[in-house]
Amino acid sequence: MSGMDLSSEQLAAMRPSEFRSLVRKQQWKTHTADGICRGYLQANLAIVPQDIAYDFLLFCLRNPGPCPVIDVTEVGNPCPDEAVARGADLRTDVPRYCIYRNGVLVDEPYDISSYWRDDFVAFLLGCSLSFDWLLKEAGVQYRMTGAYVSSIRCKSAGLFSGPMVVSCRLMKSSHDAVRAVQISSRIPAAHGAPVHIGDPAAIGIADLCQPLEKWEVAPQKPGEVAMFWACGITPQLAAMEAKLPVMISHRLAHMFVTDIPCAELMCSRSVSE
Amino acid sequence: MSGMDLSSEQLAAMRPSEFRSLVRKQQWKTHTADGICRGYLQANLAIVPQDIAYDFLLFCLRNPGPCPVIDVTEVGNPCPDEAVARGADLRTDVPRYCIYRNGVLVDEPYDISSYWRDDFVAFLLGCSLSFDWLLKEAGVQYRMTGAYVSSIRCKSAGLFSGPMVVSCRLMKSSHDAVRAVQISSRIPAAHGAPVHIGDPAAIGIADLCQPLEKWEVAPQKPGEVAMFWACGITPQLAAMEAKLPVMISHRLAHMFVTDIPCAELMCSRSVSE
Repeated sequence: MSGMDLSSEQLAAMRPSEFRSLVRKQQWKTHTADGICRGYLQANLAIVPQDIAYDFLLFCLRNPGPCPVIDVTEVGNPCPDEAVARGADLRTDVPRYCIYRNGVLVDEPYDISSYWRDDFVAFLLGCSLSFDWLLKEAGVQYRMTGAYVSSIRCKSAGLFSGPMVVSCRLMKSSHDAVRAVQISSRIPAAHGAPVHIGDPAAIGIADLCQPLEKWEVAPQKPGEVAMFWACGITPQLAAMEAKLPVMISHRLAHMFVTDIPCAELMCSRSVSE
Repeated sequence: MSGMDLSSEQLAAMRPSEFRSLVRKQQWKTHTADGICRGYLQANLAIVPQDIAYDFLLFCLRNPGPCPVIDVTEVGNPCPDEAVARGADLRTDVPRYCIYRNGVLVDEPYDISSYWRDDFVAFLLGCSLSFDWLLKEAGVQYRMTGAYVSSIRCKSAGLFSGPMVVSCRLMKSSHDAVRAVQISSRIPAAHGAPVHIGDPAAIGIADLCQPLEKWEVAPQKPGEVAMFWACGITPQLAAMEAKLPVMISHRLAHMFVTDIPCAELMCSRSVSE
């Protein structure tokens, strides 16, 4: 049965291992909304060669907003920690990948087995899609508009530097905005608190209707409060700026679904606690 | 004027840069209690050669409880980030150091200028002493007994593995214990929430009266609740187990005092947020 035939209820109730199995069989090749495997942490993927893994790890540590590290694989091993995703394989279990060479996007495959190398290290970084279900459960009213390149500069580390990519949610009221700060702050592993509230132009975003992906975005309405969270595709831009010989990532919004319940991450720094 | 002549009020009100200056002049050569530069984050120090810095960074990331990374210096540069401690020098601004060679403590100097190498990388890790003032401000009643080697194993990373060192505080009542969980949870950069509450034997501690340092510890009283937090000297043990050719750290409880207000760190993962 193809994943596309499933109802939203079935997708929400699906266990992460089942969903990864669908992805592996290429029966799910599109994005992973917050409605999939509800309550489980979704993760961004970044794969780099061993010789730049230290720089990348340091970049993540210096920029924990966009890059909250969930797991780092052993060199050459495409399998994440069993506590993160039992039986998973990062070469096949992400719905869609991006291959960058010398800073240029050269391929967007559904499987990277043929690209994998013995010197690759894979990083899983938490994703803010993971807390949308929490916002919804709490009755917070908002709409997601997409991701943008902001004028906020990341702290650099070795080869890596660049602007912070942010995701935007338009809150219906200031009460919703306050609740969204409270709730997202509890999950630093999913980017935590927002990095900016209010005028998009203040962080270099000229037009909210022009996100990175060509989603249809209705203009901001009176009373709506724009809130911006650090986004896990930030390291892709840093890798492009660095013109790395090779870097592999997930495609925007096509996330890796982990076995980690978001509730486990509240108020804690990582899955190990 | 020697630091030892200052009143506890003067020490509490002192700015971190002033205190570091005392330390640099070796006018302060003893431990840094929570009463010094009240409200500012104190940090553990670990210095390793560049060729094992990746393993160490990964060890910290996998064990954020004992090893909450505050700063990582550039290779060969003994100065932390200006935002962490303006004008500081990690070769002189820690009250006392430990030099380990091949896993053996070989020296405990007050200055490591003669030991510094061009390939050294220094890591600053948050310290739980930093939240004691918060506990006290909140009226939590407890006494500190010291640090212990627990039976909790850290997650290993490359060369690094070993037991978690924990600090113990005996809460006067269960109400104090609840408050202590709430308050410490707010500062993951200072080890965050406790790793264990209750029976010390459950985490391999046979006798609370025998901490690592020979402090005088009165036995646990009826009604007191033992609480254990991950401790930043954990990586020293890991380095000893790994028999690293060289590692330098602060001496237990002789911390580096940063310019970072603890209040800034609440609910956030790092100083960059």
